[in-house]
Amino acid sequence: MNITEQNDIVEAAHAMADAARFAILPFFRAQGLSADNKLAGGFDPVTEADRAAERAMRDVLARLRPHDAILGEEYGHSDGTSGLTWVLDPIDGTRGFISGTPTWGVLIALSNDAGPVFGIIDQPYIRERFVGGFGASFVDGPSGPMDLACRKESTLEEAILLTTFPEVGSATEAAAFGAVSEKVRLTRYGMDCYGYALVATGQVDLVIEAGLNAYDIQAPIAVVEAAGGIVTDWQGGPAHDGGRVIAAANEKVHAEALAILSQY
Amino acid sequence: MNITEQNDIVEAAHAMADAARFAILPFFRAQGLSADNKLAGGFDPVTEADRAAERAMRDVLARLRPHDAILGEEYGHSDGTSGLTWVLDPIDGTRGFISGTPTWGVLIALSNDAGPVFGIIDQPYIRERFVGGFGASFVDGPSGPMDLACRKESTLEEAILLTTFPEVGSATEAAAFGAVSEKVRLTRYGMDCYGYALVATGQVDLVIEAGLNAYDIQAPIAVVEAAGGIVTDWQGGPAHDGGRVIAAANEKVHAEALAILSQY
Repeated sequence: MNITEQNDIVEAAHAMADAARFAILPFFRAQGLSADNKLAGGFDPVTEADRAAERAMRDVLARLRPHDAILGEEYGHSDGTSGLTWVLDPIDGTRGFISGTPTWGVLIALSNDAGPVFGIIDQPYIRERFVGGFGASFVDGPSGPMDLACRKESTLEEAILLTTFPEVGSATEAAAFGAVSEKVRLTRYGMDCYGYALVATGQVDLVIEAGLNAYDIQAPIAVVEAAGGIVTDWQGGPAHDGGRVIAAANEKVHAEALAILSQY
Repeated sequence: MNITEQNDIVEAAHAMADAARFAILPFFRAQGLSADNKLAGGFDPVTEADRAAERAMRDVLARLRPHDAILGEEYGHSDGTSGLTWVLDPIDGTRGFISGTPTWGVLIALSNDAGPVFGIIDQPYIRERFVGGFGASFVDGPSGPMDLACRKESTLEEAILLTTFPEVGSATEAAAFGAVSEKVRLTRYGMDCYGYALVATGQVDLVIEAGLNAYDIQAPIAVVEAAGGIVTDWQGGPAHDGGRVIAAANEKVHAEALAILSQY
């Protein structure tokens, strides 16, 4: 991909993130927020904000990148002819969103057949944007711009591990997570997609999750990998289709955690 | 207390919060952050930022409020002659801090013998400040100023419940928390003192924690109560000395949760 095409993609991605922020913020911490129940059995609220943000991002693409395909959490798949697909989760962490926490995010990835090549994790309330791909990785937020860089070396024993829910996924998946958790220095919960951003900033060593969709993980993959980290499934294979995912700051801690996870 | 005295206290509290932000932010997400092990057995990191922030707040008090007593997490108790005590936790949520999350906070309370009368929960990285006491309650942050108001009525069944760690405290305390958790709509973890701010913003209904110190809870008490909420221990008594604490958005949800917790 030539540099003009890359710049064009980066520009579109930032325009989409800006549009999503603008669409979402009026709904965040607003009174009387309606939360649909998307899955009959579970609790998966989808807000007006979620839908408004995906529509806003699709409007940007219709204008700037009409030949790319789109896979969005809210409005599904739209065909394209460029061989490139935008993978969008307008609000990753809807439970965090309805609780008012600042840990949900807008996820934007641009992917080819091999997986994501560029991604953004945006936190609209904090006005903080984590960007990775095409040889660059940085965060811009309330403390100004800063390069992203994962921890270059860490052992499982000294690692900080994040996930969103203590139950993680199935009973087997919870057991696998627990087996890693009991080896690390510190385990923390509740960070939604923000956890992956914290791997990329060099603050934590591991995020381990299960039951993910492609749109939950493709932007985090781009950001973490651009910052020097590794994202795979629990067998060490590609993670861009979702499922069981481990994001690690470096090869050493990835290998140590994978040695445990791969047994489950 | 007359209005001049109140204004004087409010001014000093904001000056302290400003000073703490200035002291802490250079350390947040910095590389090579040193984390002492304060408790031999456990993991309770105290950073340079923690100490620098408490010193900065004590410097403000020496200048503006020299006759008040101080109880600080880092430097202990200092006598005063005014009958008023500043209760300070320079970084509540040190584990969150070393993980890079934006959920730790600076806690500042002004208390008399009956408990806190004014408090601030400040999140320096987000530049967000929750303030309550003397008849006012508001948040000022990235989306501008907004009044605080707890949810006026909610049942346990529709409640969102927060705590910091799934283990909560002792096995008994974890069982008590679990008994409440299985009745609510949604339980989330990892929010540190930010959870109390979310009760005050009307976003969540309950925070339940155990093993707290006075400096962990006095500022949250002031902010939540000023926003219309209730903070007690698990028997319904005063919570300002710490221990087992429940913060509730309203009387109904407080009573329902307390009916369970008080059995433990």
